[in-house]
Amino acid sequence: MVMVMRFLHTADWHIGKRLNSFDLLADQQAVFEQIRDVARSEHVDALVIAGDVYDRALANEESVEAVNGMIQTLNLTDQLPLLVISGNHDSPVRLGTGSPWFKATHYYLHTALAQAIDEPVTLGDTQFFLLPFWQPFAARQYFADDSLTTVPLAMAAIVQAMQAKFAPDKKHVLVAHLFAAGASQTDSETTSKVGGLDAVPVDLLQVFDYVALGHLHSHHALHDEKVRYSGSPLKFSASEAGDEKGVWIVDTTAGTVEWRPLTSPHDLQAITASFADLTKPDFLPPDAQDDYLAITLTDTQVIPNVMQILRGQYPHILEIKRAHGRARDDEAPVLTVQRHLDPQKLAADFYTEMQETPLTDRQTEWLKQTWAEMEAQE
Amino acid sequence: MVMVMRFLHTADWHIGKRLNSFDLLADQQAVFEQIRDVARSEHVDALVIAGDVYDRALANEESVEAVNGMIQTLNLTDQLPLLVISGNHDSPVRLGTGSPWFKATHYYLHTALAQAIDEPVTLGDTQFFLLPFWQPFAARQYFADDSLTTVPLAMAAIVQAMQAKFAPDKKHVLVAHLFAAGASQTDSETTSKVGGLDAVPVDLLQVFDYVALGHLHSHHALHDEKVRYSGSPLKFSASEAGDEKGVWIVDTTAGTVEWRPLTSPHDLQAITASFADLTKPDFLPPDAQDDYLAITLTDTQVIPNVMQILRGQYPHILEIKRAHGRARDDEAPVLTVQRHLDPQKLAADFYTEMQETPLTDRQTEWLKQTWAEMEAQE
Repeated sequence: MVMVMRFLHTADWHIGKRLNSFDLLADQQAVFEQIRDVARSEHVDALVIAGDVYDRALANEESVEAVNGMIQTLNLTDQLPLLVISGNHDSPVRLGTGSPWFKATHYYLHTALAQAIDEPVTLGDTQFFLLPFWQPFAARQYFADDSLTTVPLAMAAIVQAMQAKFAPDKKHVLVAHLFAAGASQTDSETTSKVGGLDAVPVDLLQVFDYVALGHLHSHHALHDEKVRYSGSPLKFSASEAGDEKGVWIVDTTAGTVEWRPLTSPHDLQAITASFADLTKPDFLPPDAQDDYLAITLTDTQVIPNVMQILRGQYPHILEIKRAHGRARDDEAPVLTVQRHLDPQKLAADFYTEMQETPLTDRQTEWLKQTWAEMEAQE
Repeated sequence: MVMVMRFLHTADWHIGKRLNSFDLLADQQAVFEQIRDVARSEHVDALVIAGDVYDRALANEESVEAVNGMIQTLNLTDQLPLLVISGNHDSPVRLGTGSPWFKATHYYLHTALAQAIDEPVTLGDTQFFLLPFWQPFAARQYFADDSLTTVPLAMAAIVQAMQAKFAPDKKHVLVAHLFAAGASQTDSETTSKVGGLDAVPVDLLQVFDYVALGHLHSHHALHDEKVRYSGSPLKFSASEAGDEKGVWIVDTTAGTVEWRPLTSPHDLQAITASFADLTKPDFLPPDAQDDYLAITLTDTQVIPNVMQILRGQYPHILEIKRAHGRARDDEAPVLTVQRHLDPQKLAADFYTEMQETPLTDRQTEWLKQTWAEMEAQE
């Protein structure tokens, strides 16, 4: 048994997640390999995944196969101890399948509140408390205390129960999947919470030497020395375009926390530009043309088939917005021409203009049916 | 390591299965406890489950929790070695979750054809080959042989490959989930199959000392000393009403195979009787009134609300049939009365007479909507 503890903190893998219609699995596999490389080169003693391993409680078979493979690689091939909890996106029952067998190879997977308190895991110089995503009713049940009606009240009880199990000669790390924000005000009798009734006040967590959080996807979500989100290893939405993704390397012996960045084969970029610039062949370097793009057009005029045209050059466009709105339809000369078109064509063109993407085959079929029904009623 | 081998052979648990609308899980749990008791009292060295652990590839959480609990009880609490394969109802990926860890406690779970051939399991004096449900394309892939177009051809190749791995000082047991029937005719050049292209000829399996099969739900499905179906531990359809359910206790050292019956808390009975007899309070003993009943009425006359009336006494009726058909509607005096009823009531009564069960709320709603549409069109 190692007598130091240096671990990698990651969370929110969301295996099975799609970006619009795009399958992220290949990128997730690539980033997984980077995490594996970081774990190796940093000589960590363990790897922490703070919840939301899956994107959905009912993951598809491909996702289950991928997660099974990743976990097996880390724990059985690389012989790395794993500390894993279920997040709100995971099914505790499904994710927990097989967990009683995993401990034998130091893969600790907790999916129930009771385990978090009753079964701390000691590795090296550190005692880990693995707290899966939980709801106040579970705390009321565990403590047989109906007064634990809010997240802050319940979390206070949970932390107190964990503290009672603290081994005095060890460092204490909490792994949790929750929304931590704000602070308790303890100067009045009634402890009011700044973060709201659903948030865990950060000061509650200061009894730990480190808190490895999952739930929020940005590692900048919280500014605290010891209480940190790792964020997701990939960008999952346009709002994360500016984020740097990565993992924390935590050394409880040295008391250090260091950031190691990860890069996805397909970055997610937010781009503001004119249609004319975007359609220049070298506007983005060749390897960036495949990135996931959230585009904001600076143009105001109507551009027919804009999504179709731009996707020809940038296959992974997530959305197209307008920076300055769009010219009103009555300014668009195209309308006078369209008077002579049939109503279905008009509707399809209108949709394309508004949504900047043409109707799908299915939508065209709906339009056709609806039109037929309207005609039948006349 | 034991140097004898005595094992319990069961299959086709189908956890998650419903009988009509009835949830079988409580009965399945009760029968599981009987299997556990038999394993204990018979001092078996291992327990074999020959596929179809689940009823569906995508089992609900309750079923996953139940199976996880049963397997954990057998393998971790009772410390019984387990030999398990996936059946056609199981998802190999989902059932196989965690399997690389299970071997450490002698829980061998094979979900791929390659494992069946490449990873025989030796326990005591016996070598087990665990062959999950497979399709000929998997055999073509494994052997890189496009000529394996049918089940008999592919199975011949599989058995030959297994034979090449036979340890000469061991007994050899095949665990498989397949349809075995008929025999190969090897007296002509072209081996024609009696059982058809989808069946495994039983004589192919004679190289084994015992073949523990799953797939067919009756243990009488095959008459062979060494090649046996255990059948399901519960009756799953009216056609199984006459079956005795149970498990085989196989002793490869002594060369014996013995039957141990199981009884579900709710039996499934097929009953032929008159309505008058059935409605006598003591027609069935009190504890049998809760059984699953497939009823055949000997009456011919129309009996209004017959399902509703009989379910008052027998809550778990699966179906009501007629032994001698039913009196034609024009013989039923009730019709003259019904002339004065409104059409929806007439339709509902007609359905009730024909199906011997009243319309559900949803069906009543459909009827109402359809009638409204018909009136609107007039």
